[in-house]
Amino acid sequence: MINGIGASPGIAIGKSFVLPNWEWELTDQKIDVADLAREFERLYEGIRTSKVEIEQMKDELREVVGTEESTIFDAHLAILDDPAFMNEIQGMIQRQYKAAEVAVKEAIDHFVTMFDLLDDEYMKERALDIKDVGNRLLKHLLGAPEITLPSDTQPFILVAKELSPSQLAHLNPQHVLGIVTLSGSTTSHSAIMARALGIPLVVSLVVEEAPEDPIQTGEMLVIDGNEGIVLIEPTIEEIKQYAELQRVQREARQRLRGFADVLPVTPDGKELGLGANISSLKELEVALSSGAYGVGLFRTEFLYMDRQRFPREDEQFDVYRSVADRLGGKPLIIRTLDIGGDKQLDYFELPEEDNPFLGYRAIRISLDRTDLFKTQLRAILRASHYGQVKIMYPLISSVEEVQGANRLLEEAKQELLLEGIPFDSQLETGIMIELPAAVQIAELLAEEVDFFSIGTNDLVQFTLAVDRMNEQISYLYEPFHPAILRMLKMTVEAAKKNGIKVSVCGEMASDLDALPIWLALDVDELSMSGHSILEVKERLLRTNQSESRELFAELLRCRTSADIHDKLKSFVKAVH
Amino acid sequence: MINGIGASPGIAIGKSFVLPNWEWELTDQKIDVADLAREFERLYEGIRTSKVEIEQMKDELREVVGTEESTIFDAHLAILDDPAFMNEIQGMIQRQYKAAEVAVKEAIDHFVTMFDLLDDEYMKERALDIKDVGNRLLKHLLGAPEITLPSDTQPFILVAKELSPSQLAHLNPQHVLGIVTLSGSTTSHSAIMARALGIPLVVSLVVEEAPEDPIQTGEMLVIDGNEGIVLIEPTIEEIKQYAELQRVQREARQRLRGFADVLPVTPDGKELGLGANISSLKELEVALSSGAYGVGLFRTEFLYMDRQRFPREDEQFDVYRSVADRLGGKPLIIRTLDIGGDKQLDYFELPEEDNPFLGYRAIRISLDRTDLFKTQLRAILRASHYGQVKIMYPLISSVEEVQGANRLLEEAKQELLLEGIPFDSQLETGIMIELPAAVQIAELLAEEVDFFSIGTNDLVQFTLAVDRMNEQISYLYEPFHPAILRMLKMTVEAAKKNGIKVSVCGEMASDLDALPIWLALDVDELSMSGHSILEVKERLLRTNQSESRELFAELLRCRTSADIHDKLKSFVKAVH
Repeated sequence: MINGIGASPGIAIGKSFVLPNWEWELTDQKIDVADLAREFERLYEGIRTSKVEIEQMKDELREVVGTEESTIFDAHLAILDDPAFMNEIQGMIQRQYKAAEVAVKEAIDHFVTMFDLLDDEYMKERALDIKDVGNRLLKHLLGAPEITLPSDTQPFILVAKELSPSQLAHLNPQHVLGIVTLSGSTTSHSAIMARALGIPLVVSLVVEEAPEDPIQTGEMLVIDGNEGIVLIEPTIEEIKQYAELQRVQREARQRLRGFADVLPVTPDGKELGLGANISSLKELEVALSSGAYGVGLFRTEFLYMDRQRFPREDEQFDVYRSVADRLGGKPLIIRTLDIGGDKQLDYFELPEEDNPFLGYRAIRISLDRTDLFKTQLRAILRASHYGQVKIMYPLISSVEEVQGANRLLEEAKQELLLEGIPFDSQLETGIMIELPAAVQIAELLAEEVDFFSIGTNDLVQFTLAVDRMNEQISYLYEPFHPAILRMLKMTVEAAKKNGIKVSVCGEMASDLDALPIWLALDVDELSMSGHSILEVKERLLRTNQSESRELFAELLRCRTSADIHDKLKSFVKAVH
Repeated sequence: MINGIGASPGIAIGKSFVLPNWEWELTDQKIDVADLAREFERLYEGIRTSKVEIEQMKDELREVVGTEESTIFDAHLAILDDPAFMNEIQGMIQRQYKAAEVAVKEAIDHFVTMFDLLDDEYMKERALDIKDVGNRLLKHLLGAPEITLPSDTQPFILVAKELSPSQLAHLNPQHVLGIVTLSGSTTSHSAIMARALGIPLVVSLVVEEAPEDPIQTGEMLVIDGNEGIVLIEPTIEEIKQYAELQRVQREARQRLRGFADVLPVTPDGKELGLGANISSLKELEVALSSGAYGVGLFRTEFLYMDRQRFPREDEQFDVYRSVADRLGGKPLIIRTLDIGGDKQLDYFELPEEDNPFLGYRAIRISLDRTDLFKTQLRAILRASHYGQVKIMYPLISSVEEVQGANRLLEEAKQELLLEGIPFDSQLETGIMIELPAAVQIAELLAEEVDFFSIGTNDLVQFTLAVDRMNEQISYLYEPFHPAILRMLKMTVEAAKKNGIKVSVCGEMASDLDALPIWLALDVDELSMSGHSILEVKERLLRTNQSESRELFAELLRCRTSADIHDKLKSFVKAVH
């Protein structure tokens, strides 16, 4: 058994196929001065062919996984136009008389080494992109064949040292039961794609004494993408056990589907709206098929990512309107651009920051770059004519910020009025409560807006000063901390006192253990991944609000998170 | 007039002396294979001479500025033993037959370029250190003379592109009225030294169209190290004006000295303890001469910085005991190791973190590396026998952390008991309140400890999610935020309710505008830089607690920071 990290859920059982590495050994041959022009011609021809190939891949992929994921390849196209990368290659040919393939190989090595040196997850992903594109270019310069996968055999579990998005794009999901990569992370492009394709994926294997190839082609494997486990040549007993688990997981999913059209009401009559967090139309389908009352959080940053420039007003309007149309009058809360922190745009250079989570992000960028903000506000307003659209500002820390954002919204409304473009003049505005400051002044903020949505992820991170992506201290990331319970209470009370609605849209919203907290506090709505809605609803149908209130009173008396967890676990047992 | 950043306070008026750059042009001469051994001998001889020279500088400097600052040169000695740097040099000699000086020059360039590329303040400081050491080595290899300063002339204002600690060490403070550096930061080694030497320093000049040398030797200059201003060839009027300002500043300082022995009591009888934040014995002298009641915060991390390994128990004990001895029974609060975040140790490799402020730091390291923590606890306990020592844990987020730390303290006590080593068995323990979580559960934490000390700097950063070192959003760093006022109130009330003492040790403690807040909340003590004590005391002597309370009630009704600032300003005007 090898441990790794689960990067795409599900269980796969089958034979392994180990992907050969895309690597070539080159001799450092020099070219003649007279051949310089020919060498450049070869280089440009290779670039052209590579671009065509990448565009094709992108088109093919769009059919399978949707627009967002397929735009990953825009980043690859951008590399082939990147001046730093290209100058390096051209320089080596022109000044050092290296053959084009040698120059490309050395440029790849140079950038990959440099990016790896930086020891930063984002840069490592960029290194992988450069390697992927560079190898494609190299392949054309060398006239080497594409590495292909067995296609007419049994479905298999793919094993690779690392897997680039373009390799993944070539996979036929029909043939691939699951994937294991020796390195990689849960946030890589490949992991995002595997989740979109519904293929179980385990990454970053912990291999002792690191043998070159811990898994050989043709070995029997069991992988568990939830737990991050890989079994090599499992016993019959183990296979049976995992096959059973696979069946149970599938059946549970089947049973839950029966709750799609049931109202989310507790036995003692509290109705709790269950909405969806989405980034795309595709995710909306999952949510609607689970009976979501609407969209509690539409993350617009994905509209801005993996492209070459900011989306125009019309482009944004089209997307917002499609979502509103598809919702047919159900509520749609659109959150304004929330980039910065760990979310970057290729074409909008954000400053290098020592602590990006405490930096230039979200509403701070919007209030600084009012041109971008206004474009988005206009697009949202225009979409509001076609459904029940609401607008939500992220990362609010003060009354001034809300007033500043609303002032720009008012300007946008005036412009549209003058232009005779219709919008919902009653459109509601709300804010994310995700900073400790916002909790403290929730009473003041409630007077400025129509609704609150509590973003538990950031709130917990700032309250405890813990970056949950930081493995060394992520154990301190504790949503069930006595401080967090008090802050949730403060926030909801401030909302109630001012008669505005309050919802929860962080990951805590879909945590089954947290459900009695929301019932006790009497929040109005929870918003979560469409995949979680049915499970939460099923639990809600058998949890009483009155008992939850008694429990919460006890929780407030707990001195430690461990106490809180204990009390929640016994409560859940009692419910069962 | 050129604007820059004030890095060491005070005004200087005088003629400039521009320091030539320590740079040599080398031809890329190759050596003969037969001369390899001789070339290595030259390299090693140069290293030996450089080390001797650095050791000498360190010794000389210790006399002038004290032990902490002089240990800056330990980092320089470490570079000459650094395998990465030395391998690079040796490799170029051995494999590429480069002359030793060429290899050294290229290695310097290589590392400096690499570190600069990382665009990180800490790495830039490291780059400067390597350049400094490398140039010293180069000087010996080339047999070049030391660049010296005019010593028999009038005192001058030194102007340099950048100034390394070793250049600064050679300065005779008698001859240097002030310093201007074109680049540099307020946190550089050189800036720390300038402040210790009491020399006004302006860094990082904002020069339009960057002429090579904005200032020429012999030009008349006025520099203001408070405001970060440089005047070139000022008018007689300007010189008069700054000479007057210089006089006023000196007189104000003189007048304040008269308050050193006055009790810090408001007109209506509230006594507010004014203690000192210190990192060294030298800073303690300033504090005591200002009438500090004791030390409210002894930052022990400086004991760990700029050395080759962790300080042993005895080494720590010696320092803690010297401070306790010098205080002669006055209180001494020792904060346990608070590294991580922006404070790094050369010999203790902390992980690269995306958000170090939200990472592995302070008590988190202590509870993880209990060996290090225990050593420190033992040293503090032993020192407690010689004075009124208290212990304080930084960055506490939960009851469990306090209990964990106290458990180790108890173990250390048991060990000392068994070993028959004396300590104060009644030693008090306290915690920093600097995380939003700690504020929320202050009532729970108050039951675990003897005192609170509010660290406003981190508290404001986490509450508002603002890294105040990040220039782009530092305008959001707002101690006078309505949320912060509420959190200060919560914390003090929780302390009072549990009958424990509460002090404030962040920068807000010495902000004169904040004084009525502390009086209104009835905090017990403020702890601040020794340089600020007299100024705060002077204000305290004419501020009433009763009026402060009325003011604070108004502040709590303010909706914005701007409102709060307005109210505080009018209050201060009324006091005058």
